[in-house]
Amino acid sequence: MTGRLYGVGVGPGAPDLVTLRAARLIGGAAVICYPTLAGAASFARGIVAGLIPEGAEEIVIDLPMRTERAPAQAAYDEGAARIAERLGAGVDVVCLCEGDPFLYGSFMYLHARLAGRFAVEVVPGVSSVTAAAAVAGRPLVARNEVFAILPAPLPETEIAARLAGSSSVALMKLGRHMAKVRAVIDAAGLTDRSVYVERATLEAEVVLPLAEAPEVAPYFSMILVTKEADPWL
Amino acid sequence: MTGRLYGVGVGPGAPDLVTLRAARLIGGAAVICYPTLAGAASFARGIVAGLIPEGAEEIVIDLPMRTERAPAQAAYDEGAARIAERLGAGVDVVCLCEGDPFLYGSFMYLHARLAGRFAVEVVPGVSSVTAAAAVAGRPLVARNEVFAILPAPLPETEIAARLAGSSSVALMKLGRHMAKVRAVIDAAGLTDRSVYVERATLEAEVVLPLAEAPEVAPYFSMILVTKEADPWL
Repeated sequence: MTGRLYGVGVGPGAPDLVTLRAARLIGGAAVICYPTLAGAASFARGIVAGLIPEGAEEIVIDLPMRTERAPAQAAYDEGAARIAERLGAGVDVVCLCEGDPFLYGSFMYLHARLAGRFAVEVVPGVSSVTAAAAVAGRPLVARNEVFAILPAPLPETEIAARLAGSSSVALMKLGRHMAKVRAVIDAAGLTDRSVYVERATLEAEVVLPLAEAPEVAPYFSMILVTKEADPWL
Repeated sequence: MTGRLYGVGVGPGAPDLVTLRAARLIGGAAVICYPTLAGAASFARGIVAGLIPEGAEEIVIDLPMRTERAPAQAAYDEGAARIAERLGAGVDVVCLCEGDPFLYGSFMYLHARLAGRFAVEVVPGVSSVTAAAAVAGRPLVARNEVFAILPAPLPETEIAARLAGSSSVALMKLGRHMAKVRAVIDAAGLTDRSVYVERATLEAEVVLPLAEAPEVAPYFSMILVTKEADPWL
């Protein structure tokens, strides 16, 4: 019998926004796995630190701080090989993933390498997108409205087109794309309907009207644009 | 001191996909509120039935089975008035909502009526969209890919345009729109990249290739179209 691979979403940041299932799996895990970036602390591990059993083995996939693909591919290949070794020995492995595993989640890279060979269970988690909407008090979509999630590195024209074709959007991965994104939103006349959210549900959480947002945004931030006005009925 | 209104996402259906925060709030609630449709059992209440304290008051907002807006508006108005009475007396009210409260959630209708007058806290939940992806084993989006959620009642041309402009989409509210949606997906050559999911994470869960999906879909179903091929790195 081989072990089972779990891809576990741990939610947006607050430790109590973990699901009961995720808490049970992490609390009973013999082997935990998570990625880190250039040796920095793992955000996903930090969320559930209080749940990890003492003595659990931790497989750390350390991703290099580089834009080329090959070094990250090599790191995931090596991590997948280490996980496969445990699974082959009949031990379950619990992989931690911020937010939800299949929505821009790091677990997808392990899933692609291991799903064909081992039993996999994905545990969905609370996404940072709906967490940001919750802390900002901004309903996203109702009835027959369209919602889209747009990475900010997309070209300006593509962002503009998708913004026009949706009732609400979340813009992710803002980083150094803030000026471009703000210009697109402003040109669409939607700055007043936009909110900037940083580190939703964490102590360091920031919620600001878009006009007051910083010029360079940290990784854990997003902009929500909600066109429809209240009331919804 | 007035009470606090909680809009609590209870996730897609499995009782252990409720968050720790939701479980704590429901377990300590003196007043619970949820909508029902024409007297049928509440799906949201069913998910967390095991957590509701004995003796908790339950405010049921019974929505009529009609397409006009006015009767539903009146039901939400009346429900909001009953909630406001408890809040005014200093009692917290916990409103249950399937999935996430701000993503097509029923709580939005109460939020619109009460948020200006009382303190509100929204507790995000696991969406049925990522839950469906999890049980189908279908990664949705990575890197700079675009994800969209499309209600199936939209016109055919609008669905086609948004399908073309996204890497992956979830089609919700299928009902009697299945034939139209399947024709659009087929015309885009994406039937082989599409999966039908019904009642994700429940015992009655169904996961099928789109070609084998039923002609009329129940309310708790969706189609996921994922264009990008594995591996993701």
